[in-house]
Amino acid sequence: MSTDTDFAAALQHKIDFKTKPLGSLGRIEDLATLIATVQGTLSPQMKTCELTIFAADHGIAVEGVSKFPQEVTRQMVLNYLADGAGANAFARAVGAEMKVVDAGVAGAPFGVAELIERRIGAGTKSFLHEPAMSAAECDRALDEGRRLGAESLADAVAYGEMGIANTASAAALGHKLTGVGLDVLVGRGTGLDDDGLTRKRKVLEAAVARTGALGPKEALAEYGGFEVAMMTGAMIGAAAAKKVVIVDGFIATAAALAAMRIAPATRAAMVFSHRSEEQGHGALLDALGAEPLLRLGLRLGEGTGALLAWPLLKAAGEMLNTMASFDDAGVTGPQ
Amino acid sequence: MSTDTDFAAALQHKIDFKTKPLGSLGRIEDLATLIATVQGTLSPQMKTCELTIFAADHGIAVEGVSKFPQEVTRQMVLNYLADGAGANAFARAVGAEMKVVDAGVAGAPFGVAELIERRIGAGTKSFLHEPAMSAAECDRALDEGRRLGAESLADAVAYGEMGIANTASAAALGHKLTGVGLDVLVGRGTGLDDDGLTRKRKVLEAAVARTGALGPKEALAEYGGFEVAMMTGAMIGAAAAKKVVIVDGFIATAAALAAMRIAPATRAAMVFSHRSEEQGHGALLDALGAEPLLRLGLRLGEGTGALLAWPLLKAAGEMLNTMASFDDAGVTGPQ
Repeated sequence: MSTDTDFAAALQHKIDFKTKPLGSLGRIEDLATLIATVQGTLSPQMKTCELTIFAADHGIAVEGVSKFPQEVTRQMVLNYLADGAGANAFARAVGAEMKVVDAGVAGAPFGVAELIERRIGAGTKSFLHEPAMSAAECDRALDEGRRLGAESLADAVAYGEMGIANTASAAALGHKLTGVGLDVLVGRGTGLDDDGLTRKRKVLEAAVARTGALGPKEALAEYGGFEVAMMTGAMIGAAAAKKVVIVDGFIATAAALAAMRIAPATRAAMVFSHRSEEQGHGALLDALGAEPLLRLGLRLGEGTGALLAWPLLKAAGEMLNTMASFDDAGVTGPQ
Repeated sequence: MSTDTDFAAALQHKIDFKTKPLGSLGRIEDLATLIATVQGTLSPQMKTCELTIFAADHGIAVEGVSKFPQEVTRQMVLNYLADGAGANAFARAVGAEMKVVDAGVAGAPFGVAELIERRIGAGTKSFLHEPAMSAAECDRALDEGRRLGAESLADAVAYGEMGIANTASAAALGHKLTGVGLDVLVGRGTGLDDDGLTRKRKVLEAAVARTGALGPKEALAEYGGFEVAMMTGAMIGAAAAKKVVIVDGFIATAAALAAMRIAPATRAAMVFSHRSEEQGHGALLDALGAEPLLRLGLRLGEGTGALLAWPLLKAAGEMLNTMASFDDAGVTGPQ
């Protein structure tokens, strides 16, 4: 028997002899298994969670693919720093730390101390006509992300994003990585009406026709955003550093797809937090064979769904570490 | 326009002008609406949660309807007090306080200071042959529960239960309250095999045939448990005291049904936390028209599912109270 098999058997035994009917904690037991396996110990630590929001702008926004103007990316970065956004409220509620990274917001650098400046550029180019970024820019974004992911001191990392028009980027990227059609992947984002949705689909159909089959890094450079590429790198870096990676919604799942194509071992560290209402998310999850923990009708981004899954991971850690066994507690087992 | 309509409109306005796309926080927005409505304020407090576990024994256990022996009820009470059960682990993870009530465990009183003693008796009688408890005992259990619910200082109250054979009690009670068939409502509980399940169905069919149509208090006296009746009272008392009531799984939902039949206003304060794997739970939820927040394959009881929903309520409160509006944050709205 291999060491891996021994470890898996010891872990299953530890879970099965807790004071509860066999299997009665369902997906919390699955999470406990994942956490212990990622950390390689039967007594994993799962006490701290950190949300990092990556913000950047998208050249494709000029094509009118979003209901909100591009300036909102910058405004929302300031809202995060002022503790006023949905992600801030949820992070407070669940006891997670929060960091904000400027991966490439349009305009000048913010020059604000609390913001982590990792600008690859002042927004990407419009991928309707040319690659969103160069191969060198994509590599830099991935590397900066890898470093941020590896450096985190938290037990679990959640990644969020802010970037007007980034559901368009995620749809194009998702299409290139999975082959799922744009009719399925293109949705209303922040709230497009029917005309807006039709326009977004046409823009994206023209954009993806510009290229043939692409590898994951090529697809990121062609259609990604700086925040998407940096989040991809962060997932790879965090997983390599034995952190549990909590994947948020549509855009984060597109980044997760890229991450596991670039570094397949990343997949084992991923927890899919929620099924977003954004139309394409379900199709990307299906392509991954992933069944998220929550379905709450969210479609905000910012890592809000990932934050709401954090207490489930914390509960799984407590179950594994502090819940008594039948023997410990002197409780009679099943007859 | 009535005051209620004014309040609802002001609340919806407050939610809609937070810095997020309209409706993009899905069910968290619904929770915010419920919390504010229960407390009657646009700035409700949602900071503290308390789990109370009601424990009692069931005479029907002698009919062999559970996989675990009756002594486990008493052993698990001690496990709760020693901080070793699943509910303890989850309460720690989500930051909830926990109390344990002896509503009528078989044998002598525990005589332990940390336990809240509200014993109605040393277990119920077997409802296969006679009413589980007298009408006077049922009234006492309801009254004790009402007082406990009203006295809680928490913003949200979650109720859990422990009582070997109490899925049998909940199935009979659910059947009498909703008319749903026992073939649907009777499940495996803590893990009965096929033979055990067949036996449990037969016992319950005979038991429910003993009586005709019953009102909610009569049904509780005939088929309930002391912990089920006391939990019913607690839900009524807590809701009347403007607390949000987090409803757990199958047994708690049977108590919730009884509570809203006895005091219909109780329903408005209830949040249905999760859909249990115990077979009958879905049918009771459907009878209520309730769609729980979570589906995680849980079937442990003890309030474990209710505890995992608490962070969602806390997040809804933070959203309503601390998230900035477009005006506050200087963020441009949709175009």
